[in-house]
Amino acid sequence: MLSPTKPPAVLDAAALHASLADPLLDSMNFLNEVTSRFPDAVSFAPGRPYDGFFDPATITTYLEAYTDHLRRERGYSPERIRTELFQYGRTNGHIHELIARTVENDEGIRVPARSVVVTVGCQEAMLLVLRALFSGPDDVLLVPSPCYVGITGAARLLDIPVVAVPEGPQGLDPETCAETVRRVRADGRRPRALYLVPDHANPSGASLTRGARDRLLEMAAQEDLLLLEDNPYGFFAREDDPPPTLKALDRERRVVYLGSFAKTALPGARVGYVLADQEVRDGDRVRGLLADELSKIKSMTTVNTPSLTQAVIGGLLVSSGFRLRRANAEAIAFYRANLDTLLRELDRRFPAGFRSRHGISFNRPRGGFFLTLDVPFEVSHQALEHSARNFGVLWTPMRDFYLDGGGRRQLRLSCSALTAGQIEEGVGRLAAFVEERLHG
Amino acid sequence: MLSPTKPPAVLDAAALHASLADPLLDSMNFLNEVTSRFPDAVSFAPGRPYDGFFDPATITTYLEAYTDHLRRERGYSPERIRTELFQYGRTNGHIHELIARTVENDEGIRVPARSVVVTVGCQEAMLLVLRALFSGPDDVLLVPSPCYVGITGAARLLDIPVVAVPEGPQGLDPETCAETVRRVRADGRRPRALYLVPDHANPSGASLTRGARDRLLEMAAQEDLLLLEDNPYGFFAREDDPPPTLKALDRERRVVYLGSFAKTALPGARVGYVLADQEVRDGDRVRGLLADELSKIKSMTTVNTPSLTQAVIGGLLVSSGFRLRRANAEAIAFYRANLDTLLRELDRRFPAGFRSRHGISFNRPRGGFFLTLDVPFEVSHQALEHSARNFGVLWTPMRDFYLDGGGRRQLRLSCSALTAGQIEEGVGRLAAFVEERLHG
Repeated sequence: MLSPTKPPAVLDAAALHASLADPLLDSMNFLNEVTSRFPDAVSFAPGRPYDGFFDPATITTYLEAYTDHLRRERGYSPERIRTELFQYGRTNGHIHELIARTVENDEGIRVPARSVVVTVGCQEAMLLVLRALFSGPDDVLLVPSPCYVGITGAARLLDIPVVAVPEGPQGLDPETCAETVRRVRADGRRPRALYLVPDHANPSGASLTRGARDRLLEMAAQEDLLLLEDNPYGFFAREDDPPPTLKALDRERRVVYLGSFAKTALPGARVGYVLADQEVRDGDRVRGLLADELSKIKSMTTVNTPSLTQAVIGGLLVSSGFRLRRANAEAIAFYRANLDTLLRELDRRFPAGFRSRHGISFNRPRGGFFLTLDVPFEVSHQALEHSARNFGVLWTPMRDFYLDGGGRRQLRLSCSALTAGQIEEGVGRLAAFVEERLHG
Repeated sequence: MLSPTKPPAVLDAAALHASLADPLLDSMNFLNEVTSRFPDAVSFAPGRPYDGFFDPATITTYLEAYTDHLRRERGYSPERIRTELFQYGRTNGHIHELIARTVENDEGIRVPARSVVVTVGCQEAMLLVLRALFSGPDDVLLVPSPCYVGITGAARLLDIPVVAVPEGPQGLDPETCAETVRRVRADGRRPRALYLVPDHANPSGASLTRGARDRLLEMAAQEDLLLLEDNPYGFFAREDDPPPTLKALDRERRVVYLGSFAKTALPGARVGYVLADQEVRDGDRVRGLLADELSKIKSMTTVNTPSLTQAVIGGLLVSSGFRLRRANAEAIAFYRANLDTLLRELDRRFPAGFRSRHGISFNRPRGGFFLTLDVPFEVSHQALEHSARNFGVLWTPMRDFYLDGGGRRQLRLSCSALTAGQIEEGVGRLAAFVEERLHG
């Protein structure tokens, strides 16, 4: 019989997977926790989309648009529609054709529908791609530094070694990437892929020029490297004619494209996708596309992306005439205006003379949600707590995004989830916090 | 400039992760592919729930029930409800309290709500738990043989070594488990956890007796092992008073419970959960619960379980008065009747004398979706193809579920997605196929 006096099992933290001791996986929790403790602070911290575009009524509208599409365009019976909405389904998703049509219209990306893998947000997309491509301890992932923690965190879960390529003011420099690749190879390791956000990077806000995109693709071909292009913010350019995505320029299938509907539709659906049109060969035999390999992995991570959320996103794509960029016109204008407001307020509260006197600077991103502010003092978690408590303003310490110890005197400002009035108020509070640090 | 004549990148299959060369990850694709090629066959293959219980109108009903709950019980404003439905949310989910109330009512399991992790189906639950608990090449996962491929596949993705414990007719034998644990330990490796489905296992259909459950818990305490209890089919017992789950009997937090709404609600929502109330200590310091560690991992696999699908399942739980077993009364009666029909038809088409003459036998599960049929001939993928093409009946070769080369003359029959009429017709076709093999 069980003894009721036995103490409960206790797990020793040291016996858990090493990723759980990595500050990387804790930093996001810390930020969320601080944010929740100061609900009245103006928060430049989260990169979430603005809530005001969401309307619960659209769920039913989109579901109906999708079922209409299945009935009219595909001739599905009510029973088959029911099965499509409620049952297990195709591992790589059932809105893959709709996504292929949309990326062609929006980005000029032409890939076969069977190269599309519908995922549970872009995060699962990263996990699948990393798991497929990395097979041993000598396979190295290159990432920019600073870097989005979603990719470095996923690599950590899979024990994949990561090598940082420092970003310049224009984002990644293709020559620096090529040098890093050669250095990794000289170490006897295999540089397998380079992850990057070419448009309005998280966290830096930097974007690659058209020339850098071409050179990066050329470098990838020369060095036999894959490029993992993550593009959550591409729509939100401040200029009207932004450069094409890497995938649109890719003639040699060097680019695995990671897509997201979190910012262009709704985060709560958790629908993302991979475009993986690379051919996989087993000796001389063509085994299929990389997308088919990702399917095998996905069957062991989430089985399917929920058919219900696929249907909601599918309905949005159908309703937009497979032109999501056009459907985002209001959001694009909103985020442009927000970034303009943030830059204007920074110029007003930190005038040029003041900036040069105190060694303060910020970049002027060509779009997206983020910019970085350099200050002449340490930007720690403690400083964030102080800023929240005493000045009512939140932001993100950049050090959490660096792999090489950088960013200690830098903070990230996100303006996506705020109104113009909140941005004005928030920059004022931020200026008061900076002022105190300069003179305190 | 890019050269348009360069050949496209080709990926060498040998350079991909080793799991992708494992037949395990391909076997499910093979089965799906065969099933799709023979749409008119009666299929005893898939373990999916019966479609007839699904009604698209319920999506809106459940969403409204959930938002009503948030408004009335929690006093949420319309804006806060909108955020809850559409935004990123709490990593471990927002219906954790509803799930904790439901498992207490349905299973007598009492755990704090903060030990609940809401996942993208039970598959993500397995992935999170394995990643947290297994830290090095000496950490071994024990599984029954035959075993559900979802757990062995997830272990494969994470390069976790698996050791098989052979099942007996009553499922896993606690003594055999204990012996295996000691053998693994004698090899210098660490047996970390044992995965099992105590109720109506997939694929064997076996269930543990109450006595075996008690002994297994005692063994886990003695051998310092965690039990990963997967319970997708527990509701569907043929008897009215089935034994309690391991987690309901667990007084020492030895059991990590893996739950699913795929069979008791709808697969298309892809909502599952983990109950992980184990305390984690860092030296003398209590770091939190295992659920908190799983949260860190989940932030790097899917970020959140979609808030939309959580809301649908949350609405179902609220509507049922947090008594999902009662809400499943019709489904429970249906699956019981189906298993009764399948057993009756097997007895009719393979009478006792015929069975003993030819060395044919089948088990009589106490519930669930599956049973196993032993035959005196090789049950290969080719045999399945032959059965589908020439006899119009599909089933699953058991060899795909064995880790130790067993099951070569055994097949799995699932009766969950069929009507009584289809089961009668299907067993007739199966008998004709077996007849041919015996005499062919």
